[in-house]
Amino acid sequence: MNYYEESLRIHESNVGKLNVISKVKVVTRDDLSLVYTPGVAEPCKKIYENEENVYKYTSKGHMVAVVTDGSAVLGLGNIGPKTALPVMEGKSILFKEFAGIDAFPICLDTQNVDEIVKAVKLIAPGFGGINLEDIGAPRCFEIEEKLKKELDIPVFHDDQHGTAIVVLAGIINALKVVNKKIEDIKVVVNGAGAAGTAIAKLLLTSGVKNLIVCDKSGILYRGIENVDDTKKELAKITNPDNIKGTLIDALVGADVFIGVSAPGIVTQSMVKTMNKNAILFAMANPVPEIMPDEAKAAGAKIIGTGRSDFPNQINNVLAFPGIFRGALDVRAREINEEMKIAAAYAIASMIKDKDLNENNVIPNALDRNVAVNVAEAVKKAARETKVSRI
Amino acid sequence: MNYYEESLRIHESNVGKLNVISKVKVVTRDDLSLVYTPGVAEPCKKIYENEENVYKYTSKGHMVAVVTDGSAVLGLGNIGPKTALPVMEGKSILFKEFAGIDAFPICLDTQNVDEIVKAVKLIAPGFGGINLEDIGAPRCFEIEEKLKKELDIPVFHDDQHGTAIVVLAGIINALKVVNKKIEDIKVVVNGAGAAGTAIAKLLLTSGVKNLIVCDKSGILYRGIENVDDTKKELAKITNPDNIKGTLIDALVGADVFIGVSAPGIVTQSMVKTMNKNAILFAMANPVPEIMPDEAKAAGAKIIGTGRSDFPNQINNVLAFPGIFRGALDVRAREINEEMKIAAAYAIASMIKDKDLNENNVIPNALDRNVAVNVAEAVKKAARETKVSRI
Repeated sequence: MNYYEESLRIHESNVGKLNVISKVKVVTRDDLSLVYTPGVAEPCKKIYENEENVYKYTSKGHMVAVVTDGSAVLGLGNIGPKTALPVMEGKSILFKEFAGIDAFPICLDTQNVDEIVKAVKLIAPGFGGINLEDIGAPRCFEIEEKLKKELDIPVFHDDQHGTAIVVLAGIINALKVVNKKIEDIKVVVNGAGAAGTAIAKLLLTSGVKNLIVCDKSGILYRGIENVDDTKKELAKITNPDNIKGTLIDALVGADVFIGVSAPGIVTQSMVKTMNKNAILFAMANPVPEIMPDEAKAAGAKIIGTGRSDFPNQINNVLAFPGIFRGALDVRAREINEEMKIAAAYAIASMIKDKDLNENNVIPNALDRNVAVNVAEAVKKAARETKVSRI
Repeated sequence: MNYYEESLRIHESNVGKLNVISKVKVVTRDDLSLVYTPGVAEPCKKIYENEENVYKYTSKGHMVAVVTDGSAVLGLGNIGPKTALPVMEGKSILFKEFAGIDAFPICLDTQNVDEIVKAVKLIAPGFGGINLEDIGAPRCFEIEEKLKKELDIPVFHDDQHGTAIVVLAGIINALKVVNKKIEDIKVVVNGAGAAGTAIAKLLLTSGVKNLIVCDKSGILYRGIENVDDTKKELAKITNPDNIKGTLIDALVGADVFIGVSAPGIVTQSMVKTMNKNAILFAMANPVPEIMPDEAKAAGAKIIGTGRSDFPNQINNVLAFPGIFRGALDVRAREINEEMKIAAAYAIASMIKDKDLNENNVIPNALDRNVAVNVAEAVKKAARETKVSRI
């Protein structure tokens, strides 16, 4: 199938992908009096009496805003809010299909941090959660941080945390296959944008001690100049030996390579310098940092990519639907680190030990049970960390 | 049926009224590749090449935002954005049921004019039109005016124009019944909020010469103090003899009374001072300015109310679905006066002359053909006034 031609045809014949329908019939005069005036005044009054009733009588509690400024869309870059709409509609229907969550695209006509924060705050009353999507780094960090402080509903930048959670799930299982412990491994993350930064932080929180992040200029180290503040902060908590150099230097003796960078930048000779039973998650899309067969030929043990035509596909759809489902179900005020880690372990646990092997460390992206399991784990973690409201 | 209890039950059992679903199936890996990456990149590219393609490949062209600040909700008043959500969901499903338009509630957490304008501008890329709802006067005028200037999609405050259009439709037919001409009648509009102001303006545009507006303080006249600027402006274009006094004085010799004010404020003795074959649209809800039987007993000929249990129900649902359907179908840049008047005549024309009588001047609110007719008339007017883009 030619995905591009066929996708175009589907989008054109349906004029977009979203359909907003009523759960309630509106045929008779009585129906009209129940869904609108005068009947509708009654749920309004109940919410007026107690604001929490908004979760009981409206869609808020199962409605997520998929918010973008169109600044970092897929591999297309800064294409703007209107152009990003097909992606946001797609994300919205994935929420529905994988977790029964209603989601709606909000494409913002600004790329100013404060305007984005303000707009999301202003529209928040109607939503149970905010999924930030395809917003470029480093603005995405500031936007998410500010919104988390100001809103009492979950705010989750999927390009950061969704990716990080699925990567962690893959690492958990891959380490079982190669029989290594998370606290012993050396990890190199190549790419210090939204995904790379979140992956690095989540791996550190999950027990990785030796982790090096590279960006285009090479290894991030304490004292580095000419990079933004986020990267300087990252250098403070990574690279324990404070080594300098390029990705080539970083990879020597590494157990794990995680690429959220550019096609073909890892060579076979670089893989050969890595530790035995090397794990590579080469997620540049559609062309990975190194092709799986090349990496294997150079001695790597486990390869994951973003693609569905190779084993071990790292796909965010394994994380965000279940995470929001769990967070919404307990009316969590936020999605915290414990909930993210619980989600990663829940994803990893979908593959039983007996089925684990080098070509099967990540569950199938289409497995509908993943979201159910993730939601349960996230609810439990939310309750244990007391961010749940029910 | 107890509408209040039953409405509460319906809202609770469905947890709100909205369902955002996919038009496209998402079951197989191929489906995922078509609705999301990599296929979705192709419609994005087409929109990037030509922005108008957003109407071809996304939901924008059939998606309306139902925007409120919760400041003037039904008869409930300033109850805030969360509390207004059941009403906005109700409005959204009426769009769908009566015109096949997708609509989505946006409840804004501010009542500041500039913040509202800014928020709506920022979210506009994903919408084909903006329906402002239940925003209090006089802020609603300024908000609509600013948005109309700044956006290239229709902006329509339904409490103003929807009501005005249906009132005009009723007047057109009522005048046929009593055999009077629009340019000869004296009209009194009681209430100078969103609806009253819009009704007065639309009637003037439609040929009424002698029109007086009253607010709580009495007749609006040139030179009046202690009222807001909107009312002073209204005084400039109404009340040709510049009379002063109360509603009692205004009604003497009037052919038409239009009430968007308060229960029971018109007495039988006031009706008796009106012209022969008087027409009263007493739209205070649920209790009108005067009850139909009382008005008739005092000599009035035609009575309309907002209620479904009396003849001649003035219901906005006769206007807004067809108006937006027509405007969206031709990608109108705005909804102008010609389109509004065309809508009113289209609504009026739904009742054939042979069926016209004092108890039948307005079509049934549930008649699905009204929206179809209105849409056609609005499209034609949009093309003739060159605000259409296709």
